[in-house]
Amino acid sequence: MTDALKRLEKKDRELMLLEHISALLQWDYETKMPPKGLSERSQQIVLLDSLIHKKLADPELGKILDDLGAGESSPGGSADLDPVQQGMVRSYFRENRKSRLLPSSWVEEFSEVTSQAHPAWVQARKEGRFSDFRPWLEKIVRLCREKTELFGYQDHPYDPLLDEYEPGMTTAAVDRVFSQLRRELPPLAGEIIEAGRPDDSFLFQDYEKEKLEAFGTEILQDMGYDFQRGRMDESVHPFTTAVGQHDVRLTTRYTEPSAADALFSIIHEGGHGLYEQEARAGDAAGTRNGSGASQAMHESQARLWENMVGKSRAFWEHYYPRFQDLFPRQTAAVSLDEFLRGITKVAPSCIRVNADEVTYSLHVVLRFTLEKALITGDLVPADLPGAWNEQMELLVGITPPNDAQGVLQDMHWAAGMIGYFPTYALGNLYSAQLYECALADIPGMDASFRRGNFSLLRGWFNAQVYRHGASRQAPEILETASGKPLDASCFIRYLRQKYRDLLEA
Amino acid sequence: MTDALKRLEKKDRELMLLEHISALLQWDYETKMPPKGLSERSQQIVLLDSLIHKKLADPELGKILDDLGAGESSPGGSADLDPVQQGMVRSYFRENRKSRLLPSSWVEEFSEVTSQAHPAWVQARKEGRFSDFRPWLEKIVRLCREKTELFGYQDHPYDPLLDEYEPGMTTAAVDRVFSQLRRELPPLAGEIIEAGRPDDSFLFQDYEKEKLEAFGTEILQDMGYDFQRGRMDESVHPFTTAVGQHDVRLTTRYTEPSAADALFSIIHEGGHGLYEQEARAGDAAGTRNGSGASQAMHESQARLWENMVGKSRAFWEHYYPRFQDLFPRQTAAVSLDEFLRGITKVAPSCIRVNADEVTYSLHVVLRFTLEKALITGDLVPADLPGAWNEQMELLVGITPPNDAQGVLQDMHWAAGMIGYFPTYALGNLYSAQLYECALADIPGMDASFRRGNFSLLRGWFNAQVYRHGASRQAPEILETASGKPLDASCFIRYLRQKYRDLLEA
Repeated sequence: MTDALKRLEKKDRELMLLEHISALLQWDYETKMPPKGLSERSQQIVLLDSLIHKKLADPELGKILDDLGAGESSPGGSADLDPVQQGMVRSYFRENRKSRLLPSSWVEEFSEVTSQAHPAWVQARKEGRFSDFRPWLEKIVRLCREKTELFGYQDHPYDPLLDEYEPGMTTAAVDRVFSQLRRELPPLAGEIIEAGRPDDSFLFQDYEKEKLEAFGTEILQDMGYDFQRGRMDESVHPFTTAVGQHDVRLTTRYTEPSAADALFSIIHEGGHGLYEQEARAGDAAGTRNGSGASQAMHESQARLWENMVGKSRAFWEHYYPRFQDLFPRQTAAVSLDEFLRGITKVAPSCIRVNADEVTYSLHVVLRFTLEKALITGDLVPADLPGAWNEQMELLVGITPPNDAQGVLQDMHWAAGMIGYFPTYALGNLYSAQLYECALADIPGMDASFRRGNFSLLRGWFNAQVYRHGASRQAPEILETASGKPLDASCFIRYLRQKYRDLLEA
Repeated sequence: MTDALKRLEKKDRELMLLEHISALLQWDYETKMPPKGLSERSQQIVLLDSLIHKKLADPELGKILDDLGAGESSPGGSADLDPVQQGMVRSYFRENRKSRLLPSSWVEEFSEVTSQAHPAWVQARKEGRFSDFRPWLEKIVRLCREKTELFGYQDHPYDPLLDEYEPGMTTAAVDRVFSQLRRELPPLAGEIIEAGRPDDSFLFQDYEKEKLEAFGTEILQDMGYDFQRGRMDESVHPFTTAVGQHDVRLTTRYTEPSAADALFSIIHEGGHGLYEQEARAGDAAGTRNGSGASQAMHESQARLWENMVGKSRAFWEHYYPRFQDLFPRQTAAVSLDEFLRGITKVAPSCIRVNADEVTYSLHVVLRFTLEKALITGDLVPADLPGAWNEQMELLVGITPPNDAQGVLQDMHWAAGMIGYFPTYALGNLYSAQLYECALADIPGMDASFRRGNFSLLRGWFNAQVYRHGASRQAPEILETASGKPLDASCFIRYLRQKYRDLLEA
């Protein structure tokens, strides 16, 4: 068994190196690559991903996992392994199993279809015409339905798709918490909007990029993001990626109309970056256990910093004077209260990524509802735009003026990523549930924020989340830290409290 | 045979993708990587290079080359192949042969030794103490002597080492032209220095980095370097690298004391970049034939632009007014003649990379002389510092004050690159020999430079050099273009004419 473990560890390190190389190819593509490098870059990424896929599907890896006692009923391997070792075995058992279950004909068709679907989606969105994208979506839905059959499931055909992005999560569990969001968020949003429509026009003035970058860098440093192990660049869509465990990079953009976009992108990606830099379990440098636990746990760290910390009064009591120094023209006439109400303004909108903290999750609930129906066959792609607009009206109280601002707004489906969306809202729920515990455990958190000091917060998350790396699945980390399973009430409570305080200020 | 060709082309494209990925890892390491990414990055590069090495040594590749008729007496394969196909076969026959001849024990030891020798050299240079580096150099010389025996040779044991970097070149041929340099350059340098010591202090003032960058970018665009297929960044040592055939990147530095360093680095690397962007033979995108022919041919293109074009009167008649506009404080009192004499000042110095155009090649002659002696065994590493200083006195007329400015100045030997140095001076010789022909073929070249137009020059080099890509070896390209074998007289003539004109102005 020791020998098998050593062999697994060797494969693990080699695979991580390849994944980090692939991440660099992608990072460079998004940030530095000259335009005409595109075609060769795509080929480079495809080649590297096929090397990774081969290694994950390698029968030799399967044999090692066998030797370690991994199987359908014991995905973490033998009970003799310690929890960190079991985490590694479980990760590779999942990957190896999936690679074996998907025939190469499926993999090739999926790769072919999604690579053509992306430009078709770009064009369809430009023209605002869903019908141009529909044939591609039909293929993608068919392939995802095939995939779910190939993987197999017990309760719901959406389970295997969800599990790809959020290991250990089930459709039933998401249904339960999303139903609560569906019930409680729309009236809450209504109440908040009713109570007042703050003026946030000061955010839409011209903010100098260099100053925003310098201000964002200061905040990242205070958060504990380590620039010796990372860097910040500009890209069309903000993202965070690990090019190594000691090289975790984030990006932002400064081109959007509101300064809040750049600022909160930086803090959001900083949350991802900090988690990825600190995540580790055991001797984890350069191993799979040395990264985040899941998409939703990652998102929870990003939303924690972006919204719970970064849009709190205590945070801005520290930073607002500095912000006003940097941007006197834009903020001289704006009080701290007005600033806070501006950055937390609630207003229904068509586009998910621009949505406020209250309605954001409803956009995700909508996609989850539609994805499930597409996978069960209760909804066909041809009927999607109608279903989309109906749900938008129901959940957010708004009807998109066209498909570009409706069903075509996100790139995920063109990329074949059915099953991903729930993680965005699960991230909100995780973060609220964890943060509630952190606040209960640690008196004086707000006071530390008022000094621009986040070590108490980091300490708590280090103990409860970071130090497990990817060795435990997100639901287990959440339950251990908070003493209960996933519970949407924390998020609702957090929002109610936050907006009550804002209105009373 | 068609089938074998197709299989070779497939392998060729895959290998180029891997080499371009490896180049990106290196580029990022030199330009963007945060400091603590170093250890993982080294592992990533080692992993990728081992994948490349495996593919080059693959017996299946050997079988394909057999099928194409490649062998010791016919490295380009069957006579039925066209010259471009033969070029590809020859490249891979060389690589496959070398990979097979070097036992993996040698490869591992070499990799181990050089990876430890580099930091040892850095430290020894810092302390100015050759004795600390000597044990490493002894190992490296031993390994290189083993390599030359493993590869085999007919005339001189240095031949296989030279041939690694400059295919088709022989020690005897280099001996012949370097003897002429050894005879003629020192008295020429003496004459020029005697004739006057120009004041170049204006170059050592403070030049704003942003303006130098903008000015360099304008020149690169005029040269024909395509920013849609490349980019310019900053690094400690300037270099050019192909991350794809349509993604050729260059770097410069702005930190050195003289503005000339940044400026002529940009033009030098621009010469490399332009060649790499334009080099192609046949349907060469993404193939080995779509890159430069050799190290020395590459260097010739860099030196052509840096010195022959970039330090010419016609060039600066166009650019100097713009340069003065950008840097009035530094250049207002400097006439065009004074500027030209400043940037072409000849003065003996210890450091090769800072040497002027006349003494530069003598630094290379010195290294060639010492390397040959190390490989034949006529010189042992322990005696190297003494031999170095003796040769410096003889060739350049100067004795280094310490080993850091003498024998320890370059990183090449620590990297095991014995055989590389000659290409630097061969580049000068190639460039002069080719440029002499270009000037003879094309009237009005200078007049076009005076308009900042380089299309005549590019057109000639495209026809004679670029369009062969790597399908022909450099000596063949040189001989076809100039109608004669390598001849150092062109370079000597070029220098005499240039400095005569400068002194008469």
